[in-house]
Amino acid sequence: MSRKTGVWILGAFGSVATCAVVGAEAVKAGRISRTGLVTDLADFAGCGLVDLDDLVFGGYDLRKTNYLESAREVDASAGILPERLVEAVRGPLLAASARVKTGCSLNCGATIEGFRSNGSLEAQRSLGDVVARMQEDLRAFRESNGLETVVVVNLASTEPAMDAVPQHATLEGVEGLLRTNARERVVASLLYAYAAIDAGFPFVNFTPSLGNSVGGILELARERRVPHCGKDGKTGETLVKTVLAPMFLARNLKLLAWEGHNLLGNRDGLVLRDPASNRAKVADKEDSFRKLVPDPDTHSRVRIDYVPSLGDWKTAWDFIHFQGFLDVRMVMQFIWQGCDSALAAPLVLDLVRLAELARRSGEAGPMPQTASFFKAPIGTDEQRFDRQFAVLQDYARAHAAPTAARREPSVSPA
Amino acid sequence: MSRKTGVWILGAFGSVATCAVVGAEAVKAGRISRTGLVTDLADFAGCGLVDLDDLVFGGYDLRKTNYLESAREVDASAGILPERLVEAVRGPLLAASARVKTGCSLNCGATIEGFRSNGSLEAQRSLGDVVARMQEDLRAFRESNGLETVVVVNLASTEPAMDAVPQHATLEGVEGLLRTNARERVVASLLYAYAAIDAGFPFVNFTPSLGNSVGGILELARERRVPHCGKDGKTGETLVKTVLAPMFLARNLKLLAWEGHNLLGNRDGLVLRDPASNRAKVADKEDSFRKLVPDPDTHSRVRIDYVPSLGDWKTAWDFIHFQGFLDVRMVMQFIWQGCDSALAAPLVLDLVRLAELARRSGEAGPMPQTASFFKAPIGTDEQRFDRQFAVLQDYARAHAAPTAARREPSVSPA
Amino acid sequence: MSRKTGVWILGAFGSVATCAVVGAEAVKAGRISRTGLVTDLADFAGCGLVDLDDLVFGGYDLRKTNYLESAREVDASAGILPERLVEAVRGPLLAASARVKTGCSLNCGATIEGFRSNGSLEAQRSLGDVVARMQEDLRAFRESNGLETVVVVNLASTEPAMDAVPQHATLEGVEGLLRTNARERVVASLLYAYAAIDAGFPFVNFTPSLGNSVGGILELARERRVPHCGKDGKTGETLVKTVLAPMFLARNLKLLAWEGHNLLGNRDGLVLRDPASNRAKVADKEDSFRKLVPDPDTHSRVRIDYVPSLGDWKTAWDFIHFQGFLDVRMVMQFIWQGCDSALAAPLVLDLVRLAELARRSGEAGPMPQTASFFKAPIGTDEQRFDRQFAVLQDYARAHAAPTAARREPSVSPA
Amino acid sequence: MSRKTGVWILGAFGSVATCAVVGAEAVKAGRISRTGLVTDLADFAGCGLVDLDDLVFGGYDLRKTNYLESAREVDASAGILPERLVEAVRGPLLAASARVKTGCSLNCGATIEGFRSNGSLEAQRSLGDVVARMQEDLRAFRESNGLETVVVVNLASTEPAMDAVPQHATLEGVEGLLRTNARERVVASLLYAYAAIDAGFPFVNFTPSLGNSVGGILELARERRVPHCGKDGKTGETLVKTVLAPMFLARNLKLLAWEGHNLLGNRDGLVLRDPASNRAKVADKEDSFRKLVPDPDTHSRVRIDYVPSLGDWKTAWDFIHFQGFLDVRMVMQFIWQGCDSALAAPLVLDLVRLAELARRSGEAGPMPQTASFFKAPIGTDEQRFDRQFAVLQDYARAHAAPTAARREPSVSPA
Repeated sequence: MSRKTGVWILGAFGSVATCAVVGAEAVKAGRISRTGLVTDLADFAGCGLVDLDDLVFGGYDLRKTNYLESAREVDASAGILPERLVEAVRGPLLAASARVKTGCSLNCGATIEGFRSNGSLEAQRSLGDVVARMQEDLRAFRESNGLETVVVVNLASTEPAMDAVPQHATLEGVEGLLRTNARERVVASLLYAYAAIDAGFPFVNFTPSLGNSVGGILELARERRVPHCGKDGKTGETLVKTVLAPMFLARNLKLLAWEGHNLLGNRDGLVLRDPASNRAKVADKEDSFRKLVPDPDTHSRVRIDYVPSLGDWKTAWDFIHFQGFLDVRMVMQFIWQGCDSALAAPLVLDLVRLAELARRSGEAGPMPQTASFFKAPIGTDEQRFDRQFAVLQDYARAHAAPTAARREPSVSPA
Repeated sequence: MSRKTGVWILGAFGSVATCAVVGAEAVKAGRISRTGLVTDLADFAGCGLVDLDDLVFGGYDLRKTNYLESAREVDASAGILPERLVEAVRGPLLAASARVKTGCSLNCGATIEGFRSNGSLEAQRSLGDVVARMQEDLRAFRESNGLETVVVVNLASTEPAMDAVPQHATLEGVEGLLRTNARERVVASLLYAYAAIDAGFPFVNFTPSLGNSVGGILELARERRVPHCGKDGKTGETLVKTVLAPMFLARNLKLLAWEGHNLLGNRDGLVLRDPASNRAKVADKEDSFRKLVPDPDTHSRVRIDYVPSLGDWKTAWDFIHFQGFLDVRMVMQFIWQGCDSALAAPLVLDLVRLAELARRSGEAGPMPQTASFFKAPIGTDEQRFDRQFAVLQDYARAHAAPTAARREPSVSPA
Repeated sequence: MSRKTGVWILGAFGSVATCAVVGAEAVKAGRISRTGLVTDLADFAGCGLVDLDDLVFGGYDLRKTNYLESAREVDASAGILPERLVEAVRGPLLAASARVKTGCSLNCGATIEGFRSNGSLEAQRSLGDVVARMQEDLRAFRESNGLETVVVVNLASTEPAMDAVPQHATLEGVEGLLRTNARERVVASLLYAYAAIDAGFPFVNFTPSLGNSVGGILELARERRVPHCGKDGKTGETLVKTVLAPMFLARNLKLLAWEGHNLLGNRDGLVLRDPASNRAKVADKEDSFRKLVPDPDTHSRVRIDYVPSLGDWKTAWDFIHFQGFLDVRMVMQFIWQGCDSALAAPLVLDLVRLAELARRSGEAGPMPQTASFFKAPIGTDEQRFDRQFAVLQDYARAHAAPTAARREPSVSPA
Repeated sequence: MSRKTGVWILGAFGSVATCAVVGAEAVKAGRISRTGLVTDLADFAGCGLVDLDDLVFGGYDLRKTNYLESAREVDASAGILPERLVEAVRGPLLAASARVKTGCSLNCGATIEGFRSNGSLEAQRSLGDVVARMQEDLRAFRESNGLETVVVVNLASTEPAMDAVPQHATLEGVEGLLRTNARERVVASLLYAYAAIDAGFPFVNFTPSLGNSVGGILELARERRVPHCGKDGKTGETLVKTVLAPMFLARNLKLLAWEGHNLLGNRDGLVLRDPASNRAKVADKEDSFRKLVPDPDTHSRVRIDYVPSLGDWKTAWDFIHFQGFLDVRMVMQFIWQGCDSALAAPLVLDLVRLAELARRSGEAGPMPQTASFFKAPIGTDEQRFDRQFAVLQDYARAHAAPTAARREPSVSPA
């Protein structure tokens, strides 16, 4: 049974998005394996997830380019999208490129705003108009491509951390900001999330940006009965942390210090040179760790440093100092050398499939079954990867049972 | 409620045993923290485990020495038992030393047999007499110390791998070997396990040696209704593997290669220079990995090399090559720098407490709740640490419920 | 031939100083080997260096304590000065402790000034009086111990980086600051260096502090014909850099990025939490690297982070990204796990021996033969360790020749 | 001034050779930088080295293929020769491919002999005929390409270690083996070296194979006045060792243990699965280390393990345990992730240029100026990279001086 599903990507020409789109097309064309797709595990066999063949890509970006060009950039930076592979899916890539429109850069920081052109969405007269335009674009995308639904996925660069805005905490507050055109108190991701969810489209926030994580949007999603999830994809160093830290605790070993030093060189890294964006990114990593290891005596630090020559390859070095029996001090270190985009891209496709399933199953609010995908999962404080993954497997099992009634979502927002 | 429990250690003056005994006495004396004791986690709060204060140590060794001397050796090798700490528990250490008798070195390999003296147990006329002597020693230990029960713990050096002996597979076979005095077909650990379990004493095998893992002993334990567990303590590199490998699988990442290179310098390392002992040790590590990662395309290798200057400190370097989406190849490496004895010692105390609880609860056969402690857990194929630990937590929960009837053991041998 | 030589240590109870004093006494007492003493290499056999037996220790500190106590602290932090060793040299340690007086903390940063007591030297009425008191103390040390000479060694905590003060560049300027009591423009290390050199005592600056590195003091040393050297001991990560970087250059490999992340936990680390002190420390490391690798395209970064649990053990991780033939990008990483004090202490003794030799040989000004000991060697821009060490070997050879005339120093200040 | 120089490669389609040939052509075509060419350093500016433009490639291989194909294989294994680059030099690659003839696999081990075809050189009636054919081929290569000289470079897979053959030690012995057709006592590399040098062609042995390193060939080179060098290119882990070990010694630090674990996956790695070839390879690494660190108390080990997925990328982990002052034990580790072929290829071109210069300068015998290129340099015991490189710089300086008389070679065989 075919169910055409739209994937509307914010930051559509970024490296994660490019890898997701090129990769999905290459899988469809049989040019690469399906390795890395979590939703291809046996657990999901009977869930009736939408197939990659049924995904149609479009979205927003600030740069005017296309997937052939962005793939060339990714390959120059990371060596992972060889010309031969890209050429093999040239047609679908050009078609997807044509579906990308100019997005919104409101309060996205100097680096991103540098890409802004006249056509940026925030040039609209009011915030209300910006939201309206977004919703028009989403509906037009759905209509003109004959899509059953559209999942909106935020893959745009990390927005700078904004001081707490009390109005964000309630739907009334958020709508007040829109109404009064309070441009200095909202960020692009918040507008995107509002627009998508208000119009009934599932929203996936793969970035550390605020988006759907604030109270007002949580409220909106409950009211509109729309599933959504986020935030901040867990692809590398933090993933490993959420696997290793529970091991130390299970052995009653005392964590003295955990230092995580991340080096990366892609556009994300460049954006992270801006202290406010860096703080936003580091914050999710640190919060994740603190939830895993609440002991205040444990010293911890996360650094993210820009090393241009690394391109899209991240190297993380973690130094773990721990104490065992006889109060003996010992050390574990790990070095993670991963290509961030290649790690993130399949998870994006997984989340689209899971959001589509949730939508179709009538589930609403945060999707705790996706906690294992995020550094700061909305709707749960569980940070331990094994527990998060068990929830996902349980969810898959429940949805795979052929006769299982599609129950009301067992999960409600925090 | 005090329940004096004996701990009869095979390899009583080895470094793990020395750390366990010195450490237990130092905890009793309030000189060190209880860090590293798994059974001190909150999960076990209501289980009524025997307290360290109620443990009485004794056992077998081939060397004639005492805990003051063996602690000095451990400190010279690893710097973890400072004189001041040892002196603070001098009295109990001398008392424990006096309870150590000369053990058995049958087919334990040239290095170990080099320690053999006239009084070694295998000097008895027949294997039956060896077993009888062991049982006499155990009963005398119990009587003269007023112990409720005795847990026998194998901490002796790794025995060389022996070619499969069909008789080991059945109790009848094992007893036939004893009866016919077939000395070349049995090893010390098998005699110890037979003697202990036949006499009704729980048996913990922390080493890779055969001991209680063969079919004949499993049968014996069922018949005599004695709980036992093993084998091969999971303290460092393998522990990490059983945590990390499931992460890669959960993300549908393809493991191309996993190389584990272990360096260590203590007496265990020396014994492992003997190729047959090395093979026995490596075998458990490799089997563990194969059960975790059954994909035959995954290249894997385990090396254990002797580096004398490291003493009791092990350094392991693991190189993990994996493939993700877009068929991109990435690398994770970790370096583990742990003191083996300090990691193993608290687990020994944990296992004694769990064996005593199982015995008292009327449970018999392998103890799958202890799988997380072992590289080659008897009675289960589960190698994933998180699943193993969840079983232990469930077990603790079941035994903690104040009104819970002590049910029949839910677990039966494989 | 005995030549009693005084070692007047600034920061006398710090961990490097404590290791140097305890270590020298332990060597004299035959309790430890002479490993780590560069001046014990065969190259120096005929140089007639002063023996450790002839060294007499004293100095300044802000804390009122003694070597038994400071050794206990070092052992608690690093586990390298066991009680038994310290007790074996208790007598000499108490004697040395009695020769330590209260020093000067002028502009040493909040952490250090926190140790200040009433007796601090800067409590003197004027800077001139401070210098006069220092010179009195040095002369009294020499007289009362019957010393041929005294070498002053700066081992005090890193002073905060001070904005450039033009007066430091000339002797006239420095003396003007003293005369006008311009307290906000001088730092303790400058006063120490002035006092020592003006009074004819060789000065060794093992820290990144200004001390003898400014033009005014260089001028003073030339005028007074006093040998001196510094600055900032090269003990670990930077040492390795100055060995590895030339290798890459010799192979015409292009260094794309060199990231050095240092973790340490001792009092130095604590002081380095102060951004200004951190900047001073990092600056020497960065300058050293830039002189080695002048290519402006090479990205580099040095971080020094405080990890309390590490105590006196430093862990440095260096990530080196380089490009070779076919423009292929490759990676080298190293991890250095060293005990800073144990690495620095023998170099301090070496420098005292070399300074005494230079003084006795009538040499004056910077000592370029000591460049291999420092991150920012005074009087030379050579950073390559092999070249620096070759200069030292040549120097030793020249001074070893029994009939060699003691030539005028071939080296003059920059 | 143009001087066309032939490069006759043994193992012409191997990965190092392919990278050297493709790389040289790509440099000529201006498609890649000259990074990695040691002879491009400023030191060599005035030496009049032959330019890459003047190199003409040919040689022997056992496989019948061509450089387009072998480049594709290298790219599949290592990702370093993208199609676009190779296509840009398609013409020269096909021309070079046409100059490759079927070589000799005598006693090259089962893996290599598996590539043998009917046309292999050893199919000749006698060893004398094999040598004669080789010399014919070399002369024909020179004549038909109008070359001033031909440098023969051994890049073939490592031959298995052969038990010492006394006849190898003298020219008389070697010629006796040829005369008596003693096929079981010679290896291909020996025949190649004999043929080349006897005919007056310089010989470069980049492999661990015997070739020109035995006494008989040394004698031959002296008699025929031919320069030659080797053996076993120093490209990665050993290079780093010969830089780091002298640092430890210069600081009088005691090396307790040095463990080097190498993983690699290319054809070389496959060949090294053969224990005898592995022994040959490891032997050079171990000898190199022992010459650097003669202290018999230093424990050392070298392992080379085959990890297929790594292709041409080698990962080496070295663990260095050392003792400093106060007898404190510390650790340094490094991880080298390099592409062996990309590291080796420019050195091959360098050695050709240096051999041509030596030939033209009338120098004969081993070329100690090339010691820094080899693990087991012929004609010197010096293993320290800095000293080796200083010799090379001195040599360059001597040959760069425009008016410098071209002196007799200062170097004679060991």
